[in-house]
Amino acid sequence: MSSTPQVLIAIIGAGGVGKCFLSQFEFLARKRPSPKLSLTYICTSKKAIYNTDYSPIPTENVLSSLPSSSQTPLELPKLADYLASATQTGSTKEVVLVDNTSSQDVAEAYPLFLSFGISIVTPNKKAFSGSYKLWQDIFEASSKSGAKVYHESSVGAGLPVISTLKDLVDTGDEVTKIEGVFSGTMSFLFNSFAPTSGTGGKWSAEVKKAKELGYTEPDPRDDLNGLDVARKLTILARLSGLPVESPSSFPVQSLIPTELESASSGEEFLQRLPEFDSQMEETKVAAEKEGKVVRFVGSIDVASKQVKVGLEKFDRSHPIASLKGSDNIISFYTKRYGSNPLIIQGAGAGGEVTAMGVTSDLLKVLSQIV
Amino acid sequence: MSSTPQVLIAIIGAGGVGKCFLSQFEFLARKRPSPKLSLTYICTSKKAIYNTDYSPIPTENVLSSLPSSSQTPLELPKLADYLASATQTGSTKEVVLVDNTSSQDVAEAYPLFLSFGISIVTPNKKAFSGSYKLWQDIFEASSKSGAKVYHESSVGAGLPVISTLKDLVDTGDEVTKIEGVFSGTMSFLFNSFAPTSGTGGKWSAEVKKAKELGYTEPDPRDDLNGLDVARKLTILARLSGLPVESPSSFPVQSLIPTELESASSGEEFLQRLPEFDSQMEETKVAAEKEGKVVRFVGSIDVASKQVKVGLEKFDRSHPIASLKGSDNIISFYTKRYGSNPLIIQGAGAGGEVTAMGVTSDLLKVLSQIV
Repeated sequence: MSSTPQVLIAIIGAGGVGKCFLSQFEFLARKRPSPKLSLTYICTSKKAIYNTDYSPIPTENVLSSLPSSSQTPLELPKLADYLASATQTGSTKEVVLVDNTSSQDVAEAYPLFLSFGISIVTPNKKAFSGSYKLWQDIFEASSKSGAKVYHESSVGAGLPVISTLKDLVDTGDEVTKIEGVFSGTMSFLFNSFAPTSGTGGKWSAEVKKAKELGYTEPDPRDDLNGLDVARKLTILARLSGLPVESPSSFPVQSLIPTELESASSGEEFLQRLPEFDSQMEETKVAAEKEGKVVRFVGSIDVASKQVKVGLEKFDRSHPIASLKGSDNIISFYTKRYGSNPLIIQGAGAGGEVTAMGVTSDLLKVLSQIV
Repeated sequence: MSSTPQVLIAIIGAGGVGKCFLSQFEFLARKRPSPKLSLTYICTSKKAIYNTDYSPIPTENVLSSLPSSSQTPLELPKLADYLASATQTGSTKEVVLVDNTSSQDVAEAYPLFLSFGISIVTPNKKAFSGSYKLWQDIFEASSKSGAKVYHESSVGAGLPVISTLKDLVDTGDEVTKIEGVFSGTMSFLFNSFAPTSGTGGKWSAEVKKAKELGYTEPDPRDDLNGLDVARKLTILARLSGLPVESPSSFPVQSLIPTELESASSGEEFLQRLPEFDSQMEETKVAAEKEGKVVRFVGSIDVASKQVKVGLEKFDRSHPIASLKGSDNIISFYTKRYGSNPLIIQGAGAGGEVTAMGVTSDLLKVLSQIV
């Protein structure tokens, strides 16, 4: 019998990130002779593919086979049982669950999977930015069983944001402030609406353009309400040692005009948004009068325990002002780094770079479990 | 008997980085109950402290005790034997060697330590930027024995440069170009000499000021010859897949006037440098005429396999031009990240941040060996 250690991979989610992850997973499996990686389970919300004897699923055509599969996804507790049993069959096997969804339900099952010794890698923000109780349950379960949990792509996609913050904290640095642009959508909108040179378009026109280019959620209000940024700030604040209760427990500025909160659809919202252009124009002009530009940022002041998300004004030469395209930028102010922060910048959204964070998390787990 | 796994730490070097590392090590040892970390050997070039039975050395006063210790450092092969034997005494122990020197001799002994199963963490550039043979020997020894070797601080100190590049490569991204300011000294010099606004001082005056502020080596020529940057580029190029033979196998522009290469001392060099100010002034003015500023950068073009180090002109709005203080900036251009690179920026020198890279490497090793 071969003594090459085996690791079984179970994937939930085969959307944009899931597809890119699968292709990176194939690259890994091809390139690394040990441990032997095999796909043992894959599902979407409606369909699944798996073998009851855990035999490997060929990855080549799995995405095209999924929609017509006769199997349906296992209920999450059953999936946990199914995967936990794999670790007890024949040669020693480890199992890693890859959650490529943004599902709250899957997130809430993490403590169960972890308690069964199943490691987790995921870009899903929900588990780490929901209730503080869930956060605690996840890391307690991981600590007890030794199963690992990594979520680099939950903030800034593949940018090394979470690993860097953990390194700072774990080596004893004092993080004093974290500030940045955490949303690719907001970055794109403000870099176009209030550029550092030139005038930019009308707010409603920029939102419409961003939607057409695929930079927003189907209903742009899901970006403009600031919740996505608030979730990311919740995660970073908790990693910095602040027990933030939830993403709604600190001030988050919504860019949805009150009158349009109840619009019945994204289409109706976009149609009526021009009526409110003067509000954003005033904000832009007020900043310009100070020689500044307006940006949508999040910040965590660790000493005063203040977390906030909203519009701020920046000098045109500030790194946050001169961001390009839909890039994110995250600045860590710490005791060691002094007045010049450690800065990480680049694409913070997109299938390939998000999957990259998940794949590098998987590599971290593999280096530790086999 | 306790079942808490033990890890013995051996430290070579107790200078600026060594002192900071020791304090971060004390923080780790205090904070992490498992594995039990203990200091088993520490030395400078002249003195050492260790117990023949491997019993832990108290860390509190070790730095003040070292200069008056009656023990001298073990020869490197003897040290390797001494540490390898520790792994065979009583309960299972792992050993990590922390090389906080910039010694070529210690670097050349890495394959030996690794072949004995002793992991290594270090900011020492010499091992990874010397001959390509040594590079291969190191990673072959590590691969055979399973001992780990990490050197984050060999480029950009504690900035996550090497880990990010490894993640990009290991997950299958194609790195097309790496470009940046890799020297804190060069950063400081050019940010003062050719600022994006204002005029800056004379070249020789800026070099003198940098030396007085402790930003240069005792002999500033050791910074101005470009070799430090060439070593860092060698490391990044190799990690990107280019088998660069040595830091002298690609073009490196020296900023030492030919006539001063043979000056007998750093003092004489500084005294005579004003005679050559017109050369650098011409370069600066030529850039200004194009609306640009001059910077000392390194770049790796992976496709064309070109590595080079020297002066380049940048638009004033370019992130490399608007760097502050003695910050480093490193841009990774990759297939996934497209036209907007992944950028990492911040202090790339200094005891605390360099030690931080070493300590976080130690954490990586610990997570894998116990």
